[in-house]
Amino acid sequence: MNIFKYPTKSEWPKILSRPVKEKANLEEVVNEVFAAVKKDGDKAIALYSDKFDGSSPAETLVSSQEISEAANLVSQELKDAIEIAHSNIQKFHQNQIFEEKEIETTEGVTCWRKETAIEKVGLYVPGGTAPLFSTVLMLGVPAIIAGCSDIILCSPPDKSGNIHPAILYTANKIGINKIFKVGGIQAIAGMTYGTEKIPSVYKVFGPGNQYVTAAKEKATTQGVAIDMPAGPSEVLVYADKSASPAFIASDLLSQAEHGTDSQSVLICTDETILQKTKEEVESQLEQLSRKSIASESLKNSTLVLVKNVQDAMLMINEYAPEHFIVMSEDEDYIIDNIKNAGSVFLGSYTPESAGDYASGTNHTLPTNGFAKAYSGVSLESFNKKITFQRISKQGLHNIGPAIEVMAENELLDAHKNAVTIRLNKDINSNYDSK
Amino acid sequence: MNIFKYPTKSEWPKILSRPVKEKANLEEVVNEVFAAVKKDGDKAIALYSDKFDGSSPAETLVSSQEISEAANLVSQELKDAIEIAHSNIQKFHQNQIFEEKEIETTEGVTCWRKETAIEKVGLYVPGGTAPLFSTVLMLGVPAIIAGCSDIILCSPPDKSGNIHPAILYTANKIGINKIFKVGGIQAIAGMTYGTEKIPSVYKVFGPGNQYVTAAKEKATTQGVAIDMPAGPSEVLVYADKSASPAFIASDLLSQAEHGTDSQSVLICTDETILQKTKEEVESQLEQLSRKSIASESLKNSTLVLVKNVQDAMLMINEYAPEHFIVMSEDEDYIIDNIKNAGSVFLGSYTPESAGDYASGTNHTLPTNGFAKAYSGVSLESFNKKITFQRISKQGLHNIGPAIEVMAENELLDAHKNAVTIRLNKDINSNYDSK
Repeated sequence: MNIFKYPTKSEWPKILSRPVKEKANLEEVVNEVFAAVKKDGDKAIALYSDKFDGSSPAETLVSSQEISEAANLVSQELKDAIEIAHSNIQKFHQNQIFEEKEIETTEGVTCWRKETAIEKVGLYVPGGTAPLFSTVLMLGVPAIIAGCSDIILCSPPDKSGNIHPAILYTANKIGINKIFKVGGIQAIAGMTYGTEKIPSVYKVFGPGNQYVTAAKEKATTQGVAIDMPAGPSEVLVYADKSASPAFIASDLLSQAEHGTDSQSVLICTDETILQKTKEEVESQLEQLSRKSIASESLKNSTLVLVKNVQDAMLMINEYAPEHFIVMSEDEDYIIDNIKNAGSVFLGSYTPESAGDYASGTNHTLPTNGFAKAYSGVSLESFNKKITFQRISKQGLHNIGPAIEVMAENELLDAHKNAVTIRLNKDINSNYDSK
Repeated sequence: MNIFKYPTKSEWPKILSRPVKEKANLEEVVNEVFAAVKKDGDKAIALYSDKFDGSSPAETLVSSQEISEAANLVSQELKDAIEIAHSNIQKFHQNQIFEEKEIETTEGVTCWRKETAIEKVGLYVPGGTAPLFSTVLMLGVPAIIAGCSDIILCSPPDKSGNIHPAILYTANKIGINKIFKVGGIQAIAGMTYGTEKIPSVYKVFGPGNQYVTAAKEKATTQGVAIDMPAGPSEVLVYADKSASPAFIASDLLSQAEHGTDSQSVLICTDETILQKTKEEVESQLEQLSRKSIASESLKNSTLVLVKNVQDAMLMINEYAPEHFIVMSEDEDYIIDNIKNAGSVFLGSYTPESAGDYASGTNHTLPTNGFAKAYSGVSLESFNKKITFQRISKQGLHNIGPAIEVMAENELLDAHKNAVTIRLNKDINSNYDSK
């Protein structure tokens, strides 16, 4: 871990720089897989599943039998935990349901918006050593609340051709049962173009490795929306003298274990706390099963001593952390002054892992500084809004002349004429008095 | 105009297909300009402004003198019209200010969201024959309401090195005075990387030709967000026997005059109305100054006769029109059943041009079927939301065990430990009872 004490503003860019990861040039392989899936559908999917994942199940759609069997393979303890998380995530996202009243902008001119679900969405859940059932909750629950009519889930099969039962159990529990044993680039290509088995979707969600990330970028060029740009995960802790070094260290480490490109940053106004945190990190690290990953990513990690909370907030807003943990007596100041962050964790009993799993907030968040322009996944990510306007005859008389003048000045005659013809002419219709 | 009567569902894709425009391969020139601007800043901007626009003003920043002079060059009539439009757009977008109450998902676990402005945004206003001051309103007004602290505007200079006074007047009126005489790829590159004069931004908004569109795509790969993917403009009118053919025709034509790749579609349940509309289009077309553009784009245009409003809505949701005009006795059914559209215009006195200029709704809308996954520009386009959570000691006792079980099952030890260490240990802090 790198320590910086009272850095000047000119040093910030270096201190706050993210671990640079050479963006692999995957364009060629992504283009190849997309072209093949577009042309050959499931045949191409099978080919690349075999090639990349070493497993190509004869039937990619998970059967209802597999789903019901999965429930028997998940412990009651885990089921109870998922139940709590599900309930909280549901409550938080239900609270996001949109309500907007119509407004009369001019007499006779009424405007409003209506929220409608994105009908077809695809959720991607990565494979790997651990079953990411929490991602199923974080993407699936808002999709269900939004009312998306076609929700599909893709996840790579293991070597035996199966998806982990905890993923199947969680998906089925929340109401998703169109699950495909397909991963990687071929999964994203399948959801982009559709195959005989996999339906095409309008928007793709979910984390993934560099192949999945590159495939999602490709999908956007093919008219499919994605949740947000990807990047390695990160946490920034702000702590003052009131904070517990052991707690800070546990949070820095829970970020560090994600991957070797993860980043943990501490910004602290108290030198003793900073020093003790460093020691705590070293001691807690020893106990971790993913010690080697965590110790590698700690090389990207930074402890910064600053003068006061004002300086800290300037620095934090410049960094725009994905996860921002606050253990400070200045909580109110921080809430008022945070401009750029994905999710904020307030107080000593609010570790990042609470938001990763069960507090109710979404764990799909903008990283890599994208919090300056993007929000995390929310109910809105599965919706879009349509604007409406209704203008009465009188309303058009009120704003029509302004439209005519503006259209004329933009040299758009027909735009002007659409108003003129209405202002000048009576209409033989039921609607003329509206 | 192509006429289809009672088409079967299998014919829909052909009938509803958009004009195919070969996506020009602009990657090379875009990459060249971006690399040059990144390296040489304003020097490169000047070079490409000269090369592409035939005009490269010594000073790209519009002076306050130019801005104040512009006000004298705009007619009072146009100023009054802009005033009405400004007021309505302001009211509609102010009505979008976000309010969300915090929610206690479990006792002691409180979550909420806060909306914050995207600090740095760039608005692009195309040049060309007509001054698009309406675009200044549609992008600038929500940016101002959102509270974006740095708003810049780029627009290409004319041959004499000037931006049209109506654009300068409108920008200044709403509170934007950092205006640069730069257009095309070099403008987008400048806002992406920043130069000595042009500040870099986090998100770029605005329409443009194929060069601008390709440059905005490139910007997203450089970490800059954009408003939405671009495509040619389109309108779909749904009309039944209550509609006026003259009004329908005027709306189809106001779309058709936009550009040769624009598309106008009529879906109609009444054969007489359809036939009369065709005749009205032909007669009104003769009067238009942009007759040649409109008649060219009418070749992409389609009149479809359908059995009833139910069939119509299935077809319309499949098409997902940018602009959807409704002249029908079944308005309520249509409002309830529209799923995919950018903006809806209800009733005989609500032409598209009202929303283009002055009703209050935004005219930056998803086209090319993107309304299936995207919303138009709104106040939210200039904001992002940060999630917050605060968990009390008791709260963590309530959900902590669930987090521990889930983290353990995802093989994330340190995530589990961040909870365990808190549940097991007392803390010597002011925050322990929170």
